[in-house]
Amino acid sequence: MSTTIAPLAESLPLFIEQQHPSAIAVLVDNHTARHCYPLVKSLLPKHMLIRIPAGETHKHLGTCETIWAALTKANVDRHGLVLNLGGGVIGDMGGFCAATYKRGIAFAQLPTTLLSQVDASVGGKLGIDFQGLKNHIGVFQLPDAVLIDPAFLQTLPPRELRSGFAEVIKHCLIADANEWDRLRHYDLDDIDWATTVAHSVTIKEQVVAQDPTEKGLRKILNFGHTLGHAVETHFLHRPKGRLLHGEAIAAGMIMEAYIAFRKGMITDLHLEATEEYLFAVYGRVPLTERDFDPILAHTLQDKKNRAGQVRMALIDGPGRCAYDIPVSKSAMREALEYYVGN
Amino acid sequence: MSTTIAPLAESLPLFIEQQHPSAIAVLVDNHTARHCYPLVKSLLPKHMLIRIPAGETHKHLGTCETIWAALTKANVDRHGLVLNLGGGVIGDMGGFCAATYKRGIAFAQLPTTLLSQVDASVGGKLGIDFQGLKNHIGVFQLPDAVLIDPAFLQTLPPRELRSGFAEVIKHCLIADANEWDRLRHYDLDDIDWATTVAHSVTIKEQVVAQDPTEKGLRKILNFGHTLGHAVETHFLHRPKGRLLHGEAIAAGMIMEAYIAFRKGMITDLHLEATEEYLFAVYGRVPLTERDFDPILAHTLQDKKNRAGQVRMALIDGPGRCAYDIPVSKSAMREALEYYVGN
Repeated sequence: MSTTIAPLAESLPLFIEQQHPSAIAVLVDNHTARHCYPLVKSLLPKHMLIRIPAGETHKHLGTCETIWAALTKANVDRHGLVLNLGGGVIGDMGGFCAATYKRGIAFAQLPTTLLSQVDASVGGKLGIDFQGLKNHIGVFQLPDAVLIDPAFLQTLPPRELRSGFAEVIKHCLIADANEWDRLRHYDLDDIDWATTVAHSVTIKEQVVAQDPTEKGLRKILNFGHTLGHAVETHFLHRPKGRLLHGEAIAAGMIMEAYIAFRKGMITDLHLEATEEYLFAVYGRVPLTERDFDPILAHTLQDKKNRAGQVRMALIDGPGRCAYDIPVSKSAMREALEYYVGN
Repeated sequence: MSTTIAPLAESLPLFIEQQHPSAIAVLVDNHTARHCYPLVKSLLPKHMLIRIPAGETHKHLGTCETIWAALTKANVDRHGLVLNLGGGVIGDMGGFCAATYKRGIAFAQLPTTLLSQVDASVGGKLGIDFQGLKNHIGVFQLPDAVLIDPAFLQTLPPRELRSGFAEVIKHCLIADANEWDRLRHYDLDDIDWATTVAHSVTIKEQVVAQDPTEKGLRKILNFGHTLGHAVETHFLHRPKGRLLHGEAIAAGMIMEAYIAFRKGMITDLHLEATEEYLFAVYGRVPLTERDFDPILAHTLQDKKNRAGQVRMALIDGPGRCAYDIPVSKSAMREALEYYVGN
């Protein structure tokens, strides 16, 4: 795999020339069809467009069937190429469909959101939601290329940008104490995105290279995600109050930083600095006592558990992270109470 | 991966001890639940049973959803183990479900048919049918173990045994001229199965080890399968006249041997010896001129094609096979005519 951070006008034609595919399919959703595809269309030779509805609620098997059927109808063969133009949903689902179509054809991620540029597009986690469980069905498979064009970030609503920023913060918290000290004095408006994206991608790539299928070290990338995913899943099931991934992860990072503090892994000062910055950027997710039990139930489906016991990645001092730490249900409940009451 | 040919009473407890899974799920169909599971049950610690209907017509996404849902409901985690007890459908689909559940958990193939012992269980091709196309959705993923117990062959109906034998013949034709010369003088009743299975598995393993994801050499294992699969798919769509995989492949091998002969790759003597033995063992699939067009249409979906052109693996002298040979539609039609008229 190669990750390139450059204007697509440079990187995409070069990649296509190297790949020499027998057919090209571009996967888009309603948003990227309108805002991103026009910037890509003229850079490509003859290709087909597969368009799906936008949003996490469509990240399921039914949409995969639509994608597989479109590839089949166009007689795309094993030497075909799928270009996933969009955010994490497009990348995860389009990658999964490509990795399983005829037992796997080439695909490239063209991430258009900050979240997918610094996280989803890098590292080869592919998949879909199943029975309301996030990324429950999927595979590990590195894309043939990740082509990141920071220009796409200008097309994003501010709330989407802020959501992706949570993974940037996470990368600093788990792996770069200096960058964390620098970052936490910045407003979102002050960020130089090209540099920040490059830094974040480098951290993630270094971790993934050492442990592609998450047997060990890679689990540190899940800091904030055990409770964060559970909060996110909980909100998926609620009719109102849409919560973006990064907003849920920001909440999860505060909760899990608290657990790390209670286990003596970080100081009270580090906990305070972390939660202060995250609350300042993201505010507080509106949770009440009644939400705790369903959220705790969702943690039981976390992919990092073993034999029914929740195991977390927890920051272990500034810029460091440990993993596979068993965490009891009562400790998680206490963290939820801390988050709500603090 | 390790392949063991031994009584399961020896191999299975040892594997479970090494694997030390957090949970065990045994996947069976109606047949293996009755005939095979009783032989396995007492060898296992606590486990769950997932039972699906038997047959290729159930090798689809809907059945995968049943399997994924059963694993989810039992809270099977990433350290769980799936044991696929059955023929090719169970192995291909159960393997696919395990390889995609939480992005992949451990699985072992416990093949109970000759076909799955000498072919499907070895080599890590997993998948399901989609829109009537065989194995159209899937992945390459080697199982954590293949545990072959020849005792299961005694539970098989003779027609199933004969079907699997087609792959044994194929392995000799493509890779072992001496064994082919020996084999073609035997009746099905004379075969020593333990030795024959071991020989066939060794050939397949050697080929797969050199090219796990079928970029090149592995394609020779598809001899007889381009037209064979097309014939098999054609019969899937017909209400009556069930055709077993090996029966279709036997027909495909005759057709493709004829194409090899017409291309000057094998002598008329080798063609005659091949078709004589295959017709003697399998008889002739009842095809008429009207079947040709739909069969030829199915070859367009073959996974080895490139840019709409059919490419075949063709025997190239006794015990040898070439691959990626372009074959025209008219050459395939001629082969169908030869098969029907000969």
